[in-house]
Amino acid sequence: MVNFNFDTSTRILFGKGKVSEMIAEIRGKGSRLLLAYGGGSVKRNGLLDEVVQLLKNNEIAYVELGGIQPNPRMSSVREGIRLCREHQLDFIMAVGGGSVIDCCKAIAAGFYHNGDAWDFMIKKATVNKALPLGAILTLAATGSEMNGNAVISNEETYEKRAMSSRLLRPVFSVLDPAYTFTVDKWHTAAGVTDIMSHIFEVYFTTDTGTLVQDEMAEGLLRVCVRCGPATVDQPDNYELRANLLWAGTLALNGLLGAGKSPGDWASHAIEHEISAIYDVTHGAGLAVVIPAWMDYVLEENNARRFAGIARNIWGIDDKQDMAAAKKGISALRNFFSSIGMPVTLGELNIDQTHFEEMGRKACRFGPIGTTRKLNGEDVTAILNIAR
Amino acid sequence: MVNFNFDTSTRILFGKGKVSEMIAEIRGKGSRLLLAYGGGSVKRNGLLDEVVQLLKNNEIAYVELGGIQPNPRMSSVREGIRLCREHQLDFIMAVGGGSVIDCCKAIAAGFYHNGDAWDFMIKKATVNKALPLGAILTLAATGSEMNGNAVISNEETYEKRAMSSRLLRPVFSVLDPAYTFTVDKWHTAAGVTDIMSHIFEVYFTTDTGTLVQDEMAEGLLRVCVRCGPATVDQPDNYELRANLLWAGTLALNGLLGAGKSPGDWASHAIEHEISAIYDVTHGAGLAVVIPAWMDYVLEENNARRFAGIARNIWGIDDKQDMAAAKKGISALRNFFSSIGMPVTLGELNIDQTHFEEMGRKACRFGPIGTTRKLNGEDVTAILNIAR
Repeated sequence: MVNFNFDTSTRILFGKGKVSEMIAEIRGKGSRLLLAYGGGSVKRNGLLDEVVQLLKNNEIAYVELGGIQPNPRMSSVREGIRLCREHQLDFIMAVGGGSVIDCCKAIAAGFYHNGDAWDFMIKKATVNKALPLGAILTLAATGSEMNGNAVISNEETYEKRAMSSRLLRPVFSVLDPAYTFTVDKWHTAAGVTDIMSHIFEVYFTTDTGTLVQDEMAEGLLRVCVRCGPATVDQPDNYELRANLLWAGTLALNGLLGAGKSPGDWASHAIEHEISAIYDVTHGAGLAVVIPAWMDYVLEENNARRFAGIARNIWGIDDKQDMAAAKKGISALRNFFSSIGMPVTLGELNIDQTHFEEMGRKACRFGPIGTTRKLNGEDVTAILNIAR
Repeated sequence: MVNFNFDTSTRILFGKGKVSEMIAEIRGKGSRLLLAYGGGSVKRNGLLDEVVQLLKNNEIAYVELGGIQPNPRMSSVREGIRLCREHQLDFIMAVGGGSVIDCCKAIAAGFYHNGDAWDFMIKKATVNKALPLGAILTLAATGSEMNGNAVISNEETYEKRAMSSRLLRPVFSVLDPAYTFTVDKWHTAAGVTDIMSHIFEVYFTTDTGTLVQDEMAEGLLRVCVRCGPATVDQPDNYELRANLLWAGTLALNGLLGAGKSPGDWASHAIEHEISAIYDVTHGAGLAVVIPAWMDYVLEENNARRFAGIARNIWGIDDKQDMAAAKKGISALRNFFSSIGMPVTLGELNIDQTHFEEMGRKACRFGPIGTTRKLNGEDVTAILNIAR
């Protein structure tokens, strides 16, 4: 086990009706809010009205920033920063899924930055100060509600990049499973895939002897496998939604990676290049990339790790590591298909046109991945497997 | 899943040499320390010298409070409070296992209390303010390093009682597995038992559908079962010690119980009565009580839960819940025996003399337990099973 520091400053308010505790968490930290949200779903399901009413009843001023898109864009980030400065706002309230929360994190950091907020994504600037931020989560997927990570797309350069800082962790996050009842089958399945991908990315390291982390990772994967298909079929089952929501948060709050060497993250890097160009749903892109990545990087000296997934998640009892590993990858593809996710780029109407470009871009800062270090040609080969 | 709030303010510094980061964590929070520790082990293994040298090099003043005993006593708590007041100390540094940390928590709360600190244990007072506290852990067992709980013994009344407050969570805790190399076989095994007991206490609730929590609980139990005997045999195996240490912390930092109804805790209440009178090692007392408690409370309508442990921890494949549950309890007794723990009160030289008294005392504030509500006679019956 490698040395680590672990703390999670975000306070989780989990369960039905927990939004009512939001005001107590904001008090003392902010009085003039940026109220940020995405498309129409939070309007249609009444959540936005509920939040607005709470703010009004408690005489908390706010300015709205709506229309934040999936794969959130720099234009929204810049607009949010402008609003915060113009109206002297001191707290950001994100209502939505990971895209809204990520956008708000970039706004929180950009507010104090003398330059364009994209500087954070290209490592030209680091976060020294940020506006405090709260979140009301509406989708089980991202983990953004309890970490300091944000992924932003630059629509001018067709790039999608990440930033990370402890200062960007939400002060609090409201997780009410009932708010996720209206998430459609497609986005529910994409969320499940996203959660599983976060677990895979930190599971696949070269560490040995990290039993605690492995047990927790495998346990959360089994929760996804049990609850994922059932939730797609029963969208308003509170218990299923609750388990997925909590699993999604724990999958990426630092717990699974603490004590391990850095995770792989190649699949995410590759998917970011896909969705930067084609604007596909992040989880759907991952469902295509992950099994292809597994096919490509699997070899004798890491088969034990893949076999662990095969045996402990899919119940494959093949004693031979390589054989078990291959059956496990096949089971994963079948699982993604079963919940309605694509497993080929063709299903996303993506052809080979940009494969080389995506390979090059994914590795512009050097090789990606740790299970096997990948260069641009490797990435292109993986995209070809995923065809 | 029931509603919950979850946050963990304690910063964990985990790994070899992490004590060197202690000073940075203290800065800004305290400048005059109470340096508290137990018996001679931290002197013998050089840890105390290391800490003292760090404090001296950084010109941080401190007053020592040594000799804190297992099952920490009110006399140590009162002495600590006196020292803090007399020397105007503003930060408490606990170096040791759960007993030292628990004692320091009572000191931290008692410092601001106008009355005897025992008031907190008998619910005559609540914690409104406390001195900040840091910990350097030397034993995998208690979980006290990342929660706000403390258990204190009153040597005048032969009582052992608990208190709990968010304000008592350590600001930081140093977890260096190497500091646990010198823990002897007996205390290593008792620590493993204590960790497992914390998991059992929150596992046995009447909740259904808490898949995330169940998976994590079962995963940490498997870590104990795999690492416990191996660690007893290989006391200086860093990886084994690391897994036990981290499992112990996660077992009682609120994670396993979040989203569940209150845990059972009857076994702890019963053990507290035993060790209040006989001063046995907490973990050894638990090894005797837990299987007896299981025998007594097991019935058709909760057999599913016990069978879960039997199948997922012990690999018992009996399809009939009650039969599996019974085999699981038997496997647990065998496991405790295998690591050198007692499974009968006789092995601890405890006879029936105080069984009725212990039963009465355990339930003085009302019935205990949730799996099955127990009164004094039930407790006496459990002690008789444990004979």
